[in-house]
Amino acid sequence: MSAPKKVVLAYSGGLDTSIILKWLQTEYGCEVVTFTADLGQGEELEPARKKAELLGIKPENIYIEDVREEFVKDFVFPMFRANAVYEGLYLLGTSIARPLISKRLVEIAEETGADAVAHGATGKGNDQVRFELSVAALDPAIKVIAPWREWKLSSRTKLLEFAEQNQIPIAKNKRGEAPFSVDANLLHTSSEGTVLEDPAVEAPDYVAQRIVPVEEAPNEPEFIEVTFEKGDAVAINGEAMSPATILTKLNELGGKHGIGLLDFVENRFVGMKSRGVYETPGGTILLEAHRGIEQITMDSGAGHLKDSIMPRYAELIYNGFWFSPEREALQALIDKTQEYVTGTVKLKLYKGSARTVARWSDYSLYSEKHVTFEEDAGAYDQKDAAGFINLNALRLKLIAVRNKRVKG
Amino acid sequence: MSAPKKVVLAYSGGLDTSIILKWLQTEYGCEVVTFTADLGQGEELEPARKKAELLGIKPENIYIEDVREEFVKDFVFPMFRANAVYEGLYLLGTSIARPLISKRLVEIAEETGADAVAHGATGKGNDQVRFELSVAALDPAIKVIAPWREWKLSSRTKLLEFAEQNQIPIAKNKRGEAPFSVDANLLHTSSEGTVLEDPAVEAPDYVAQRIVPVEEAPNEPEFIEVTFEKGDAVAINGEAMSPATILTKLNELGGKHGIGLLDFVENRFVGMKSRGVYETPGGTILLEAHRGIEQITMDSGAGHLKDSIMPRYAELIYNGFWFSPEREALQALIDKTQEYVTGTVKLKLYKGSARTVARWSDYSLYSEKHVTFEEDAGAYDQKDAAGFINLNALRLKLIAVRNKRVKG
Amino acid sequence: MSAPKKVVLAYSGGLDTSIILKWLQTEYGCEVVTFTADLGQGEELEPARKKAELLGIKPENIYIEDVREEFVKDFVFPMFRANAVYEGLYLLGTSIARPLISKRLVEIAEETGADAVAHGATGKGNDQVRFELSVAALDPAIKVIAPWREWKLSSRTKLLEFAEQNQIPIAKNKRGEAPFSVDANLLHTSSEGTVLEDPAVEAPDYVAQRIVPVEEAPNEPEFIEVTFEKGDAVAINGEAMSPATILTKLNELGGKHGIGLLDFVENRFVGMKSRGVYETPGGTILLEAHRGIEQITMDSGAGHLKDSIMPRYAELIYNGFWFSPEREALQALIDKTQEYVTGTVKLKLYKGSARTVARWSDYSLYSEKHVTFEEDAGAYDQKDAAGFINLNALRLKLIAVRNKRVKG
Amino acid sequence: MSAPKKVVLAYSGGLDTSIILKWLQTEYGCEVVTFTADLGQGEELEPARKKAELLGIKPENIYIEDVREEFVKDFVFPMFRANAVYEGLYLLGTSIARPLISKRLVEIAEETGADAVAHGATGKGNDQVRFELSVAALDPAIKVIAPWREWKLSSRTKLLEFAEQNQIPIAKNKRGEAPFSVDANLLHTSSEGTVLEDPAVEAPDYVAQRIVPVEEAPNEPEFIEVTFEKGDAVAINGEAMSPATILTKLNELGGKHGIGLLDFVENRFVGMKSRGVYETPGGTILLEAHRGIEQITMDSGAGHLKDSIMPRYAELIYNGFWFSPEREALQALIDKTQEYVTGTVKLKLYKGSARTVARWSDYSLYSEKHVTFEEDAGAYDQKDAAGFINLNALRLKLIAVRNKRVKG
Repeated sequence: MSAPKKVVLAYSGGLDTSIILKWLQTEYGCEVVTFTADLGQGEELEPARKKAELLGIKPENIYIEDVREEFVKDFVFPMFRANAVYEGLYLLGTSIARPLISKRLVEIAEETGADAVAHGATGKGNDQVRFELSVAALDPAIKVIAPWREWKLSSRTKLLEFAEQNQIPIAKNKRGEAPFSVDANLLHTSSEGTVLEDPAVEAPDYVAQRIVPVEEAPNEPEFIEVTFEKGDAVAINGEAMSPATILTKLNELGGKHGIGLLDFVENRFVGMKSRGVYETPGGTILLEAHRGIEQITMDSGAGHLKDSIMPRYAELIYNGFWFSPEREALQALIDKTQEYVTGTVKLKLYKGSARTVARWSDYSLYSEKHVTFEEDAGAYDQKDAAGFINLNALRLKLIAVRNKRVKG
Repeated sequence: MSAPKKVVLAYSGGLDTSIILKWLQTEYGCEVVTFTADLGQGEELEPARKKAELLGIKPENIYIEDVREEFVKDFVFPMFRANAVYEGLYLLGTSIARPLISKRLVEIAEETGADAVAHGATGKGNDQVRFELSVAALDPAIKVIAPWREWKLSSRTKLLEFAEQNQIPIAKNKRGEAPFSVDANLLHTSSEGTVLEDPAVEAPDYVAQRIVPVEEAPNEPEFIEVTFEKGDAVAINGEAMSPATILTKLNELGGKHGIGLLDFVENRFVGMKSRGVYETPGGTILLEAHRGIEQITMDSGAGHLKDSIMPRYAELIYNGFWFSPEREALQALIDKTQEYVTGTVKLKLYKGSARTVARWSDYSLYSEKHVTFEEDAGAYDQKDAAGFINLNALRLKLIAVRNKRVKG
Repeated sequence: MSAPKKVVLAYSGGLDTSIILKWLQTEYGCEVVTFTADLGQGEELEPARKKAELLGIKPENIYIEDVREEFVKDFVFPMFRANAVYEGLYLLGTSIARPLISKRLVEIAEETGADAVAHGATGKGNDQVRFELSVAALDPAIKVIAPWREWKLSSRTKLLEFAEQNQIPIAKNKRGEAPFSVDANLLHTSSEGTVLEDPAVEAPDYVAQRIVPVEEAPNEPEFIEVTFEKGDAVAINGEAMSPATILTKLNELGGKHGIGLLDFVENRFVGMKSRGVYETPGGTILLEAHRGIEQITMDSGAGHLKDSIMPRYAELIYNGFWFSPEREALQALIDKTQEYVTGTVKLKLYKGSARTVARWSDYSLYSEKHVTFEEDAGAYDQKDAAGFINLNALRLKLIAVRNKRVKG
Repeated sequence: MSAPKKVVLAYSGGLDTSIILKWLQTEYGCEVVTFTADLGQGEELEPARKKAELLGIKPENIYIEDVREEFVKDFVFPMFRANAVYEGLYLLGTSIARPLISKRLVEIAEETGADAVAHGATGKGNDQVRFELSVAALDPAIKVIAPWREWKLSSRTKLLEFAEQNQIPIAKNKRGEAPFSVDANLLHTSSEGTVLEDPAVEAPDYVAQRIVPVEEAPNEPEFIEVTFEKGDAVAINGEAMSPATILTKLNELGGKHGIGLLDFVENRFVGMKSRGVYETPGGTILLEAHRGIEQITMDSGAGHLKDSIMPRYAELIYNGFWFSPEREALQALIDKTQEYVTGTVKLKLYKGSARTVARWSDYSLYSEKHVTFEEDAGAYDQKDAAGFINLNALRLKLIAVRNKRVKG
C-alpha cells in the first residue's frame, strides 16, 4: 500500500484520536481532514473543532456534523424492524453506528479528494472490521489506516510520551489508566475492559452512566404509549416526533426507570469472547413496543419467517456487513413485512423493565369473534379442527406404524 | 370411527372434565379410566380420586400420579437447553406439558386395554392439536375423543344443566362464568379468555396468581447462584437439587420478586391470534441463567447455529410436534452443543427482573489474555486482523468495482 | 355454508369437469360460469366452449383465455429466480400454475357476481389446498366448492353412470380406467396414479409424453445460449423473446434431447407420500442456465442466503401459499438479489442432460487477476490469508485448549 | 512464531512438495517427516518413498498409508447423509479430503514429537484454510507452515531453479507450465487454472480424466441397484462391499457412462470466484441414490429440516470447518434422521446421467392405500381435507379482510 496523501480521520476530539491525528501527520506527512459526528453521544462538539485547529488542521478540513436524525432513521429504525438481537440479548448499539460513520468518512474523502480514511479502533475488536468492511463496500479505492494495528505506541506510557512530545493537551483524568473503555451514541453506551475484564466479577455500579440504578428508580410505574407506522415509531403519548427525538425521549424514560442494562459476554467476530456492560434505555423500550405492535398486526407466516432469519441479520450487523448484498436482501424481506405494522402500544415502565400491557391498531389481525370462549356466531367451525389435526397427524401415524413394523 | 369401548380420560377432578367423564359414559356407554397428574399445578389430587369414585369409576381405573420430576427432567430441561421462546417472548409453559400427559394416557391405555383416550381441550385452541398429535405419534391405533368438538353442550348453561341432570357436584364459584380460563403446571400458569379477550384492554391485576405485583416485591435485591451441568440446572446457591425441586425453588424466588409476567398476543397453530397472560417465574430465571452460562462455555459457531434453529424448534413444540422426527433431530443437535455447558451463574433478582451479573466455569472459553486492553504477551497478533479484514472485504470490493463499472 | 347461487368453475372441457359442471347445476341448482385457461397444456380450447354450451352454459358465462404470458412472467420466472426445487428435485410445475388459475377464478367471480368457485381436484392431493388457500387469500368472501370431497360419485362406474344419465359425451378412451392421471402446462407434465402407484416398479416408457426417450435423442449435442436480465431469461441464441415464447422454445429443445424427466416420490402437504413422473424439459434447462449466470454475477453472501431460504420458499409454493405474506417477503429478498443477474450462459444439450459450459456478463464479479495461478500484479496479497486463517482459527484453538484442559 | 524444529509434511512425491521438502530443510534447518496418503487419487505411493529417501528423509520418518476406507467411512459417507452440495452443484470432493489429511498430520506430529506440519496449498485457495483450521482444532500447539505464503519462489522459473540447485529431479512434463492444476481422490478429480481461467471459454475435452466423454459412453443404459443401511451405501447389485470398495465401483460405473462432470464457477471462502472442472462419477450416482432411498424412508418433517440446514452444512465443509462444534452439531442432527434410511434404489445409468427409476424398503413410509386413486378402504377421509384447508386458510382470510378494510 502506497503512503496516503490525504486522510479523513474519524475524530472525537479526545486524547486518543488527537494522538492519531498527530501520528498521521508525522508518520505519513499527510494532510488530515477531521470528521466529528454528533451521534447522540452526549458530548459537545465545538471543543473538537478547537483541538483540531490547535493541531494544525485547516478550517475547511474540519467537518463537524449532527447526524442523529440520519442515524436513527436510516440505521437504527431499519434494524429495529427486525427485532434484531445478537446472541439473544445485545441490541447492537455500537455495531449500528459504524456504517454511518464510515459512509460519511467515504463521502468526505470523495469531496475533499482524500485517498484514505483512518479510525481509532484497536486490532482486537469488532469496530475495525465494521469500519473497514463499510469503506471497502462504499469505495474500494480508498485506503484505510488503522493506527492501532500499525504504530509502536503499544502502552499507555508510550502514548502519553508521544502526546507530550507533540504538545497534545492531556486532560488530568486521562493520565492514569481509564477504569474502562466507553462508546456512546443515541442508541446506547457500552463499557468494556479493565475492571470489567473478569466475567466472574460483578461490574461496579459506577460503570452505568445513562441508567439509574434500579433501586433508585421511581417507586411508581409510568405508563406510555408508543405509536408505530410501517414498523417505525412515530409518536409518544400521541405526540408526533422525529426519529431522533423519539429515541431521545425513550432514552430519558428508560434511563429514569432503570431500563436497558445488560451485563454480557459475547463472541467477537475476530474469534474471542469479551465482556461488556451495555446501556440501551430507549432501545429496550422500543424493542418491546415493536414486538407488541407486531403481535396484533403481523401474521404468523411473516412473523415466524422474520424470527428465523433474525439471528443471521443481527450477526451480519454485528460483524460489520451492513453494506452487503445479503444484509440488503434481508432488509428487503423485513421491510416487506412491515407494511401494516401500524398502531399503538401501551407500556408499563417500572424498576428496570418495560412491559407491553395493551395494544390496538386499525390494522389489527386479532379477531375476537374467532377466539372467544363465548358463542362465536359461526365464525369458526370447531369440527374443522378434527380434519386439520387428522391430516397433520397422518405422517406421524405412518411413522409410528412403520417403526412398530420394523422393530418387531 | 367406531365407538370406543374403554377410554382413558385426562381428568383434573374439576367440573368440566367431570362432565366429560359422565358424557363419555352416557354418550358411548364405555368404560372410563381416569388419569390425574400432578404436574405441579398446585392442586391436591386426592379430591379427584373421590370425585372419580363418586362418578362410578372403579378404583383400579383411577390413576393418580406425581409426574413432576419426569416433567422437568425429560421435557422442561431439554427445551430450556435450546433457549426456546415462541414469537420472541413466550416460554411454552402449556405446550411442553401436553406431550407428557399424552404419553401417560397412551401408556395407561395400553396397560388397561383401552382403545381410546379423551381430553378436555376445546376445538379452538392449540392443546387439542398437541394432545392428538402426540397420541398419533405414540400409538396410532388409539382413538382420541375430543368432547368439546363433538357434543352439543355449547354454552355454560347447557353444561350446568347436564351436570345437574347427572348429579355432578358444582362448586359455587363455577356457577357463574369464570372470569378467565387457567392452565397451570410447575413451569407456568396461563390465563386466557373473557376479561382478557380485548388486547387493547389491560389485564386486571387479579389475573396474576403466582407472581406478586412488582410494586409489592421486596425493595432489596436478592442474589442467587445457579449451577449447570451439560446445560441443565443442578444446584441453587451451591445446594444440589433434583430437577423438579430446582424449578420449584426458582418459582418461589421468581414469584416473590415479581419475575416472569407476560402479557402476550400470540399466533395459534389453528390460525387465529389469542391473548394470554403468562406467569413463568422460575422459567424466566432459568432462561436468563442458561444464557449466562452459555455465554462463557459455548463457542460462537455452535451458539449461532442454535440461535438460528431455535425459532423452528419452539414452533414445533408450540404446534404439538414434540414426538416428531424433526423435533428429535433438532434435539440431537441441541444436546450435542450442551456437552460443556457446565458452570455457575450469579443473578440479581429485583422487582420483576432477573439479570446475570457474573458467571464462571472450569469449561469457560473466555480468555482474558486474548481480550485484554493491556499487553497480551503475544497471545494475539493485531496484524492478523488486517489480513482477516482484507479477505472478508475482498468480495465487497469486487461488488463495488462491478457496480461502479455497470452504473457508468 | 349456505348454498352457492353462482359458481365459477375451473373447466377443462374434459369428462371430469363436465361431470362437475352438471353436478353443480343439479346439486345446487346454481348458475355456472366456466373458466378455461390456456396455460400451455397443449390442448385446443375451442372444444371446451362447445361442450360448455352443450351443457347449457350461456355464452357470456364462458371464459376462455390464453394466460401463458402471465403464467411465465408473473409466476414461473419469479420462482426460477429462487432456483426453487422441492425436496431436492421437483421443479414445482403443477404447484406454480394453481395460484394463477385461482386468481382468475376470483376475478371472474367478482366480475360476474358469483359467490363461489369450484375446482376438480380430489380430496387427497395438494391441488385442492393450493386452489383454496389462494382463493381465501384473494377474496375470503368467496366460497369454494370441491365436488370430489362432497359428492357420492366415488368410483369410475358411478361417474360414468352420472355422465350417461346427464347426456355428457364420453370419449371412447375414457370408458376404461385411465392408466394414470395427467396434469400439464407450459412448465411441465405430471403423471400419477394406477400404473405408477408402486414406487418399486419402474414407470412404463409410454408415461413420458413431452420428452423423447434419451435413447432416441439426437446423437449429436446441441449448444445454445440463454441470455438473462435481472434474473429472467430474455433471449435464446441472441434472439429476444417473450417469456412464454422462451419457455416454449426451451421445451422444444429439452423435449428433443430427452431433458427433464424425473421419477419421484414426494411428501404431499396432506401428509402422505406419492409417486409421480414429471417432465420439465424447458424448466430443467432454465434452472441450469440460471444457476450458471448467477455463478458469475452473484456474490457469495447473497447467494448463500438465497440457498438457505430456498427450501422454505419451495415448500411454500408446493403447499399452496403463493399468496401469503411470507412468500411475498421471501420474493422481495430474492428479487433484490437479482438486480445484476444479467448475462449469457452457453449450455450443452445432450441425451438427457443440460450442462453449462461457459458464461459471460458485463456484470460479472469474476476477477481473473485475483484468481490466476500466474503473477497477479499485486491484486491479492497472499500474506493476508495467514491473518484471515489465524482469526478464523482462534475460536477453534480456544475450544481445543479448553477441551484438553477439562479432559485431562 | 519461533522456527520449527521438526515438521510433518503432506508429501505427494511430486515436484512441488519435493521443493517444499527441500525448502523446509534449507530455510529452517529442521527435520522433516513425510506423510503420503493413498486417498484413491490413482497414483502409486512407493515412488514417493524413494524420492523422500533421496531427499534425505530417514526411513522411520517416511509415513505412507492407505486411508481410503477411513476416508469414505468417516468423511465421505457422513457428508452424503446430508445430500451436501455447495452452491447448488458442487459435491465437495476436495473439501472433504483435507480434514482427514490434517488429522493424520497432527497424529503423526504427536507420535514423532514434531512441533509443526506443512502443506503445499497456495495462499489464494481454500485448501490452506481447510488444512490450517483442522490443525488448529485438533492440536492448537502445532504450528502450520505454508511455504507458498512464505517463500520467494513466486514464479515457475524460480521454482525450477531452486529444484535444480537442490538436485530435485524434474519430470520432463513439469518443465513447461502445466495446462491446469489437478487434485484427485477417491471421490473426485478437480481441475483448475490456466486454460480454465476464463469462465467464458469452454473447457477443452482433455481436462476430464476420469469420465469418458458422454458421446463415447455406451449406447445402452445400465441398471444398477444400490442398497443403503442407515443412510450409508452397503451393497451394489446385492453384493455387500466395504465403503471404499463401493465408491470405487460406483466410480467405474459413473466414469464409463460419462456421469458426474461439472463445469463450475464457485465462491471461494477467501473472497474471490474461481472456475473449476469437477469429475465426481461415483459421488453423483451416490447422491442420486441416497435421495432416492430417502424419498420413501424419510418423513417430510425430518426431510425438510435436513434440506433447510444443508446449505449451511455444505458451506462449513467447503470453508474448512469440519472439526468445529457447529459441524458436529449438524452431523448429530443429520445422523439422527438416518436411523431408518435403509433399503434399495434402482438407477438407470446412461450417457451422463444417473436417474432413480425404482426404490423399495422394509422401512418405507409410502402407503399405497392412502395415496391410491382407487377406493382406499377407509384409510383416508377426504372430508378431513376441508378442515385442514379451512384452518390453514384462516389466517390468510383474516389478512385479506384486514387489507380490504384498511385499503378502503
